[in-house]
Amino acid sequence: MPKFQSKKLTKEVVLRDPVHDYIHIEDQVILDILKTEEFQRMRRIKQLGPLSYVFPGATHTRFEHNLGVYELTRKICNIFAEKYPSRNSGDGLWDDNNRLLVECAGLLHDIGHGPYSHTFEHLFGTNHEKIGQKIITDPNTEINHVLREVAPNFPELVASVIDKTYPNPQVVKMISSQADADRMDYLKRDAYFTGVTYGDFDLSRILQEIRPYQGGICFTMAGMHAVEDYIVSRYQMYQQVYFHRVGRSMEVILQHLLERAKAVYEQGTLQVTPSLAKFLAGDWTLNDYLELDDGVMETNFSMWTKASDPILADLANCYLYRKPLASICIDDETKSLLPKLKDLIKQAGFDPLYYTDTNSAFDEPYDAYKPSGKNANSQIEIMQADGQLIELSQLSPLVRALNGTIQGDERFFFPKIMMSNSDEPQIFDPLYQQFQRYVKNGKLRYLRKPKTNKK
Amino acid sequence: MPKFQSKKLTKEVVLRDPVHDYIHIEDQVILDILKTEEFQRMRRIKQLGPLSYVFPGATHTRFEHNLGVYELTRKICNIFAEKYPSRNSGDGLWDDNNRLLVECAGLLHDIGHGPYSHTFEHLFGTNHEKIGQKIITDPNTEINHVLREVAPNFPELVASVIDKTYPNPQVVKMISSQADADRMDYLKRDAYFTGVTYGDFDLSRILQEIRPYQGGICFTMAGMHAVEDYIVSRYQMYQQVYFHRVGRSMEVILQHLLERAKAVYEQGTLQVTPSLAKFLAGDWTLNDYLELDDGVMETNFSMWTKASDPILADLANCYLYRKPLASICIDDETKSLLPKLKDLIKQAGFDPLYYTDTNSAFDEPYDAYKPSGKNANSQIEIMQADGQLIELSQLSPLVRALNGTIQGDERFFFPKIMMSNSDEPQIFDPLYQQFQRYVKNGKLRYLRKPKTNKK
Amino acid sequence: MPKFQSKKLTKEVVLRDPVHDYIHIEDQVILDILKTEEFQRMRRIKQLGPLSYVFPGATHTRFEHNLGVYELTRKICNIFAEKYPSRNSGDGLWDDNNRLLVECAGLLHDIGHGPYSHTFEHLFGTNHEKIGQKIITDPNTEINHVLREVAPNFPELVASVIDKTYPNPQVVKMISSQADADRMDYLKRDAYFTGVTYGDFDLSRILQEIRPYQGGICFTMAGMHAVEDYIVSRYQMYQQVYFHRVGRSMEVILQHLLERAKAVYEQGTLQVTPSLAKFLAGDWTLNDYLELDDGVMETNFSMWTKASDPILADLANCYLYRKPLASICIDDETKSLLPKLKDLIKQAGFDPLYYTDTNSAFDEPYDAYKPSGKNANSQIEIMQADGQLIELSQLSPLVRALNGTIQGDERFFFPKIMMSNSDEPQIFDPLYQQFQRYVKNGKLRYLRKPKTNKK
Amino acid sequence: MPKFQSKKLTKEVVLRDPVHDYIHIEDQVILDILKTEEFQRMRRIKQLGPLSYVFPGATHTRFEHNLGVYELTRKICNIFAEKYPSRNSGDGLWDDNNRLLVECAGLLHDIGHGPYSHTFEHLFGTNHEKIGQKIITDPNTEINHVLREVAPNFPELVASVIDKTYPNPQVVKMISSQADADRMDYLKRDAYFTGVTYGDFDLSRILQEIRPYQGGICFTMAGMHAVEDYIVSRYQMYQQVYFHRVGRSMEVILQHLLERAKAVYEQGTLQVTPSLAKFLAGDWTLNDYLELDDGVMETNFSMWTKASDPILADLANCYLYRKPLASICIDDETKSLLPKLKDLIKQAGFDPLYYTDTNSAFDEPYDAYKPSGKNANSQIEIMQADGQLIELSQLSPLVRALNGTIQGDERFFFPKIMMSNSDEPQIFDPLYQQFQRYVKNGKLRYLRKPKTNKK
Repeated sequence: MPKFQSKKLTKEVVLRDPVHDYIHIEDQVILDILKTEEFQRMRRIKQLGPLSYVFPGATHTRFEHNLGVYELTRKICNIFAEKYPSRNSGDGLWDDNNRLLVECAGLLHDIGHGPYSHTFEHLFGTNHEKIGQKIITDPNTEINHVLREVAPNFPELVASVIDKTYPNPQVVKMISSQADADRMDYLKRDAYFTGVTYGDFDLSRILQEIRPYQGGICFTMAGMHAVEDYIVSRYQMYQQVYFHRVGRSMEVILQHLLERAKAVYEQGTLQVTPSLAKFLAGDWTLNDYLELDDGVMETNFSMWTKASDPILADLANCYLYRKPLASICIDDETKSLLPKLKDLIKQAGFDPLYYTDTNSAFDEPYDAYKPSGKNANSQIEIMQADGQLIELSQLSPLVRALNGTIQGDERFFFPKIMMSNSDEPQIFDPLYQQFQRYVKNGKLRYLRKPKTNKK
Repeated sequence: MPKFQSKKLTKEVVLRDPVHDYIHIEDQVILDILKTEEFQRMRRIKQLGPLSYVFPGATHTRFEHNLGVYELTRKICNIFAEKYPSRNSGDGLWDDNNRLLVECAGLLHDIGHGPYSHTFEHLFGTNHEKIGQKIITDPNTEINHVLREVAPNFPELVASVIDKTYPNPQVVKMISSQADADRMDYLKRDAYFTGVTYGDFDLSRILQEIRPYQGGICFTMAGMHAVEDYIVSRYQMYQQVYFHRVGRSMEVILQHLLERAKAVYEQGTLQVTPSLAKFLAGDWTLNDYLELDDGVMETNFSMWTKASDPILADLANCYLYRKPLASICIDDETKSLLPKLKDLIKQAGFDPLYYTDTNSAFDEPYDAYKPSGKNANSQIEIMQADGQLIELSQLSPLVRALNGTIQGDERFFFPKIMMSNSDEPQIFDPLYQQFQRYVKNGKLRYLRKPKTNKK
Repeated sequence: MPKFQSKKLTKEVVLRDPVHDYIHIEDQVILDILKTEEFQRMRRIKQLGPLSYVFPGATHTRFEHNLGVYELTRKICNIFAEKYPSRNSGDGLWDDNNRLLVECAGLLHDIGHGPYSHTFEHLFGTNHEKIGQKIITDPNTEINHVLREVAPNFPELVASVIDKTYPNPQVVKMISSQADADRMDYLKRDAYFTGVTYGDFDLSRILQEIRPYQGGICFTMAGMHAVEDYIVSRYQMYQQVYFHRVGRSMEVILQHLLERAKAVYEQGTLQVTPSLAKFLAGDWTLNDYLELDDGVMETNFSMWTKASDPILADLANCYLYRKPLASICIDDETKSLLPKLKDLIKQAGFDPLYYTDTNSAFDEPYDAYKPSGKNANSQIEIMQADGQLIELSQLSPLVRALNGTIQGDERFFFPKIMMSNSDEPQIFDPLYQQFQRYVKNGKLRYLRKPKTNKK
Repeated sequence: MPKFQSKKLTKEVVLRDPVHDYIHIEDQVILDILKTEEFQRMRRIKQLGPLSYVFPGATHTRFEHNLGVYELTRKICNIFAEKYPSRNSGDGLWDDNNRLLVECAGLLHDIGHGPYSHTFEHLFGTNHEKIGQKIITDPNTEINHVLREVAPNFPELVASVIDKTYPNPQVVKMISSQADADRMDYLKRDAYFTGVTYGDFDLSRILQEIRPYQGGICFTMAGMHAVEDYIVSRYQMYQQVYFHRVGRSMEVILQHLLERAKAVYEQGTLQVTPSLAKFLAGDWTLNDYLELDDGVMETNFSMWTKASDPILADLANCYLYRKPLASICIDDETKSLLPKLKDLIKQAGFDPLYYTDTNSAFDEPYDAYKPSGKNANSQIEIMQADGQLIELSQLSPLVRALNGTIQGDERFFFPKIMMSNSDEPQIFDPLYQQFQRYVKNGKLRYLRKPKTNKK
């Protein structure tokens, strides 16, 4: 392939980063991307959204994460170029002509994210992946302009690495696979900023043992346990951080808040900033999207706390001032009790539509084989001394235990007061007590075992 | 003194914190303060303001810092209560009846801060210390309501600890002195989130050697070097982080941006959110103040990027998308050259009023003796084996070197393009070259040594 | 039970420790134990023996580990005394009268160890557990003397905690169980000194969630994932550090070296220091044992490098100057090839008795159920909100995956030269090549698949 | 200069190191040096000698430190080769042909050290620098043999780098200057293993800003504060660790122990291992020196605890089982009281010759100018934007404060019992009390102010 050139900076620029120590920028094009409005905007979008309500340190943003993925990509290219340089096409080693391409892809892989992406997408039909592709390939963006300076088709190539259609699997998998620069950065970064040490893993060792092969990227046998540890850390971060019940509760509130705002907007009575109004009206452009950030959303929420609609005002207040719903675990069997519970909640004065919800948080910590689905073809391979590859779960009992399993839980969220148990008698106490009989050890339960039909 | 009681929580609440590992909450009143709107609002105000433009990790907020100061205060009370409990009034040891009071003061010492406090105060005449006192003592705030539950005069007592009028110097100096819980937390926290390791010091050792005495808080001889190290770390953080030239450049832009907004507002053409409008109009209430946060400010800045006033639009753009001014060091001698430079800058098309500024950043790293001023009576004392106190700079050559000195620099800020040196000839190139002749090694210099009059 | 008293120190003594920051000593008796010759001697016995040949940083000694176990025990007592104090006998909470007892047991649990304990015991029939009991209960030791100052039966009580016959299971399991102070200290310590980050786990969280119950010590539900992480870390340390093939190779050499020394000693020609001579002669006392340490052993090895017996001299040289044997994995099937390999090795000039060995390294990372054996009754229990206990592997898929399994490998050790492959032809090259045909990907293999009899 | 070649390893060898994460070995010659007996022997010599009696974690050895210096040297070469490659002789940039030479020098710079070098040299007239030169250049050593494989004069060149006679100042100063790989490694390493965090400094930043110049090695202006911090850390480590009064006490005991052993040896009654005997007899060879290590010394001390000479036996016991002397600060004025104190000590039954001593511990934390002496020409230079050099103390007030000063103290050591103050009256109590009147706040003092003659 042709080598994409970028002017080298006469003196490298470094940014201090608590996770990687320094981010090293050696190319003019990388520096220029950083300076674009679309990229700088990432400074105002928190990486973990409402999880900062649970882990106060987790205020880090997508800006730093993108830089971190770039830095890891750069380091892996350095390692590959030094230890595994391709000598002739097809030898399965690393062609360093791909370096600038993969570095840009690493830097831009999340560029399409907006505030609270997942909740937002669900409600407004935005799609951060498609928007990301557009930001890169639309000739009107600053990023596209910068990338085009490298080569006319460079933006499209960067976009193809991110959407995994680029033909070289080493390049694609450096950014998107079960052990890619993206995941490695966010696990270490989220662990650092939350203060949760589970998420830490031995990145030095992994970088010591990573290597290219014909089909993508793998690890040598000496790195097997470091990769195993990384998979376990990932599982732990999901269980302890990403699936935290209070974080999910805040997400439930956020979703209902936006739903209610939409309803009120349709009645024509909502005070709202222009950019967000476009989304409530269902008629937005890329520029509107780029104007959104956490601050804009919170500014709207703050205005809504004074709305005349009492549910909107209350939900805005709950979100902004961290007043989460309570929750209990449910399962397929106990779900049939939910109508009963919702009825009690309604009697206690809450609209179940806005004050209750069920929410599942499940993850496949590792998936070796599933031929389709989001993890398709992304098993982690370990290379033996003779070059033979063995899939990770064949070697590790821990990964085997997690392989293909679904970890997580399903929860029912409801107003905290339903669990209250105060000394002073209150009007709804009998209702609360009735509700609480269904809850034991944080789980929903039957008061009487339901009869099962004979089979 | 009477012991202030608060209901103990049946089970302590802990918050994960990357700096202190856990924040431990044992009292209902502490938990209730956390839940107030005035306190939750701190989540939306960054601790280091525009410095996150320089250190991308520095997105941590005043919320976490306040929690950290509380936690350090709690730890120091634990140590004092165990090792130095007062047996009779006047023995100079620790009366643990002050615990709840000082913990609340630690938690609330910064509650009056708003977004970009220093710039904001300068322009709008707000005062975060007075506002903080008001938030605590005004009967309409949630915080006042919570504190009053402890005792009717409890809010006033907490406020008196913060404004240093409370009679017990041990209580006051735990929060406000040259080695207090406030400084210790922010140094460690800012170091952690910026990734700058200079700011780290040996907190374990300091807590091992801290002790009360009649006149306040001191350290035993065995802790001298740890305290010395803390003073040096503080100096290093000022030189490396707080005084960073790019951070100051962003502050200069912010100040000019708000000044210009005020001017445009007075012409009646500014689009602005209601809460900020009150400040531009010079007619604001506590509630208006409490509605401000970083997001509200940035939402306004974002709107202003489309303002018809070109200077306002450009400055908003420069701030939001990190386009700092350049700067050089100046001193009393070279200052007389500034009119000349401003003239060149004006010729190059920039209004010097909005595109240049001088800014001093100076700090007294330690001040042992000055009988007046902000550090009065705040020297650090080291206790000898026989109980005698020696002031720190008498023991440490490093502290002696910093004592009473002023460290920092004064800078002139101006548009970056004035330093440009591109290959392609541009219209203003002769102007730029003329400008650049005055700059050497980052300093302003005379082209010819000015004549000095004979004496 | 009666409270055992020890004079409190007027000022606590602290020792700096990189793992726990400080070791806090508050009791005269603890300080006095530290000062005994039997305890100081631990400074000269490395915690990980020959593993420092693999991980150069791992020079830490049993002295520090014993201090660390003491410190963890002290911390757990503090937590139990504050959060779970027993109010009446039989309530399943913590009786702090046991504190001094369990702290001494923690400090002394490994006091019977000598240099290279495991190898030494195997060859000379010493038993570090029995010797430890003797050091504590023999009226002629300094430690016994110190302990007797507390109470006449105090030494026996301390010994009974260590040998698990003391009736209170909380006290026993704080020192000896699958999640005890001993294991927690050595995992963190060995990880710190080797530099292998796998071994790190979230000790703060575990200490936050540890609690006593009727049957011993358990963890609350909120601590489940931290305990799971600890079990996984333990497994990782075994696979990566304790079972390291080169470490085991050095142990094999050590064992053969001592065996050969014994043989030469019996012929009456060995130069040996008096204390070690006693063991070679099979006639030793406690005092002889206490005179051994790593330095004494190495001093002997150094003398033996000049022995006239060539095998002894060579093995001493191999051990002292780190010349490990090579190794390959074997299994029950391939073991039958070993006579063939040993024959080739013999032809190449090495006595297979001293230059080859098989060595198994297997561990049960966690064992929930086995009714007998060393882990009997030591499953880890997690306490639900209602007080009900659930065994850890019921909750964690990772622990379930490890539960009752045997992890590790069996290896055949042999001279490295057998794998040599030099450019210059050497006399034994055909032998080496023949040998190497049996090895693939670090494993022993059949050249032809052995015929299996029809069933 | 000619490029010295060494066979590159087909696969780099890495050693895990807690300070630098990994030590990377890429050359056969480096690996071969590691395997020599002279180098392996460093594993048995503790880096900080008796300081492990004060900081229990400080059991790390000269082996690891030597590896660490090598690794830092390798990293600096990488940085210089990438950022500052010499294009023509005399351009003041880095000639990478020196790489193997300086790496070997880094690895071997301390090869001449034996056990307790400083005490040993003082008593037996050994000189670790001369011995180091001999180990490298003597044709009978394994190290010389390995080095000669590179080129016949390679051993002499390596030796000339270490003794600073090699003509290229960049090469020499990478190993020996006020900010060299040696000091940087030992500060970080000693801080890590003692657990004293003062010694930590920002190595990443220093490596980011280090650069070659005509006269050696300097740092860019952006690294000034990192270098300043390093100098301060160095000062702190001296004050807190290297000059620790208990560590010096153990050194005093060690010295008197060896002196007494010499005296007893001369009387012909000492039991001693052959290698040490040679030194007591004053007739030793390089091979004798290479046979010494910490273990051999301690084995002798252990034998001596049973010597018939009571002073020898007692001193051996004090050293081996950590029974330090007490100490107080003295100065030129109070020194005249020492005969009086020694007299009291003698009356209490101790031979002042063996049980008292004075010991100075002083260091110049930084020395910019002194034209002669060990720091000659070793000031640290900071390079301005225009290439001009400024000496560090001109820029840093902290370094200026330390520059040329002497930090430390002088102490008088004596038996601890002189300070005893027990409840039970003892025979020597009046003596002890008389002694103690001279001590206040850890310092020797006059009971009456001595009269000064009129001038």
